[in-house]
Amino acid sequence: MAATKTLTPGEAEALVSAALIASNTAADNAASVARALIAAEIDGQGGHGLSRVPSYAAQARSGKVDGHAVPVAERAAPAVLRVDAGLGFAYPAIDLTVAHLPEIAAETGLAIAAIRRSHHFGQAGAHCERLADKGLVAFVFGNSPQAIAPWGGKRPLFGTNPIAFAAPVPDQPPLVIDFAVSRVARGKIMAADKAGTAIPEGWALDPQGRPTTDTRAALAGTMIPIGEAKGAALALMVEVMSAALVGASLAFEASSLFTGEGAPPDLGQTVLAIDPGRVSAGAYGARVTTLVSAIAAEEGARLPGSRRLEARARAARDGIAVPAPLHAEIAALAGAG
Amino acid sequence: MAATKTLTPGEAEALVSAALIASNTAADNAASVARALIAAEIDGQGGHGLSRVPSYAAQARSGKVDGHAVPVAERAAPAVLRVDAGLGFAYPAIDLTVAHLPEIAAETGLAIAAIRRSHHFGQAGAHCERLADKGLVAFVFGNSPQAIAPWGGKRPLFGTNPIAFAAPVPDQPPLVIDFAVSRVARGKIMAADKAGTAIPEGWALDPQGRPTTDTRAALAGTMIPIGEAKGAALALMVEVMSAALVGASLAFEASSLFTGEGAPPDLGQTVLAIDPGRVSAGAYGARVTTLVSAIAAEEGARLPGSRRLEARARAARDGIAVPAPLHAEIAALAGAG
Repeated sequence: MAATKTLTPGEAEALVSAALIASNTAADNAASVARALIAAEIDGQGGHGLSRVPSYAAQARSGKVDGHAVPVAERAAPAVLRVDAGLGFAYPAIDLTVAHLPEIAAETGLAIAAIRRSHHFGQAGAHCERLADKGLVAFVFGNSPQAIAPWGGKRPLFGTNPIAFAAPVPDQPPLVIDFAVSRVARGKIMAADKAGTAIPEGWALDPQGRPTTDTRAALAGTMIPIGEAKGAALALMVEVMSAALVGASLAFEASSLFTGEGAPPDLGQTVLAIDPGRVSAGAYGARVTTLVSAIAAEEGARLPGSRRLEARARAARDGIAVPAPLHAEIAALAGAG
Repeated sequence: MAATKTLTPGEAEALVSAALIASNTAADNAASVARALIAAEIDGQGGHGLSRVPSYAAQARSGKVDGHAVPVAERAAPAVLRVDAGLGFAYPAIDLTVAHLPEIAAETGLAIAAIRRSHHFGQAGAHCERLADKGLVAFVFGNSPQAIAPWGGKRPLFGTNPIAFAAPVPDQPPLVIDFAVSRVARGKIMAADKAGTAIPEGWALDPQGRPTTDTRAALAGTMIPIGEAKGAALALMVEVMSAALVGASLAFEASSLFTGEGAPPDLGQTVLAIDPGRVSAGAYGARVTTLVSAIAAEEGARLPGSRRLEARARAARDGIAVPAPLHAEIAALAGAG
């Protein structure tokens, strides 16, 4: 068992915030990033959590991310918000989007935000969930650097491109769906590579498009999508929605989200918010309750997202266990300010 | 080789139209249904094509579908169209939606249509494609009778719930994505059942949730979704979007689309239309062209939907080959008017 350091969520947020402020980031941006990373960590999405702090800090230090960017929103059409993340972190732009979309959706019935000049957007479901908490059905589409090939091809042209969706349920937590369209997260291959172990067949293809169990070949090759051609089509759909529709980098144009070198990744995100009461003429609440009740009554079935609620309760009770070396690295960043 | 009868698309449309008119359906509704079924047949989606005519006719005769329904559209909010299909066929309601959504999207930047009291909506991608032909990025969500269990459960609560998406590409046919979230179409199991053959493992589970190769056990059980829990989550997302958000039957409440007996299925569909020029401030056309060009340049890769274009060219050249017994059945319906 590796040594860990246990922090309360508040302590963890303060530490991350300090590490980012010391790495050339404005305090309010650092607070926004820290909130998002700790929320992901608590929800069991460690790949979008504390593990990101060193690379985020490196990017803010090098200027690959502008830690002082102030996102700007503009109402481009009655139901359209265009948001310029200013080549800064994604989370402050997402905060601005979540603040404005509900009032637009209340006016028009649904609203879309196109976030450009953006960055790694982390746990996509959490952004949807914030809108569902305000009574809206929400989608978030965002791309990520190249990982998946078009079906039949060898070159990774699409990201692992998560699909995130949330829907409010009266008197219950919202339904939250959030998953990458690759069979497994790329982080699992990176972890196996670090550990020097092979990966199971079915996760990835090598650069020649052949199945592989070798982590290096997999990382140089492509991730296998869910449902084969269907998942590759979903990845393409997300590229259209998050890059073409926004005017952002396509997956194969985006720079790495893990290193301080290179041009800004310039990724895009699209957020869709729908007022279910308006669209359904009042029928939504009872209908979604019937649906959720039927799933809850089914033995062995789980509502998507229910695990995260258990993880949250656990973190509130037990705190967050951070691997000691990662804790030391973040603390050193914070101390170096 | 079974005997077939070859018809031109125009002849096939006229024959289907006549069969429906003779089965208690208004002429304009019959024409709308015939256009949609023949388009699906031509595109290689036979499960949404001519094979549906006998069951559609039976439903119109019994009154399970109101062949004389006139769909009504109402602007419920600046960006929201509510469409009542009147418990008739879905296609006339979809025609009305496709006629009105572009003008709403031109005003507001994006628009949603919620179609209630509807029926089998056939080849979902074709509806998206019509909106893409008018320059819009489009989604169609619609549910279908119960087929897929929530992940971990045994009872089918969700339909095979297709995801359909289309995006215009300057000077090229639109990108069209359209697939059910089950690993294979339920029709494949029905065909194997008719032929008395076993199905491969991996297609379906029996009513106890165990893998099965027996068609009867599969039809009584559930279809396996793509990506396991991920596909089941997609099916749930489509239920929320097409039933809860519309005020329509959930998959497990809907009656069969194949028999004349029972209450109307009362299904729902949601159509989303986005003006990409407004959302992207003009960047969309060049960005989507770059994306499509990269896929086209990739050896072995295919753009989703490219097969249907080849199928269309083939049908225009060679006509549509209809199995002789099906042709005789439809001709008998048409002759019985």
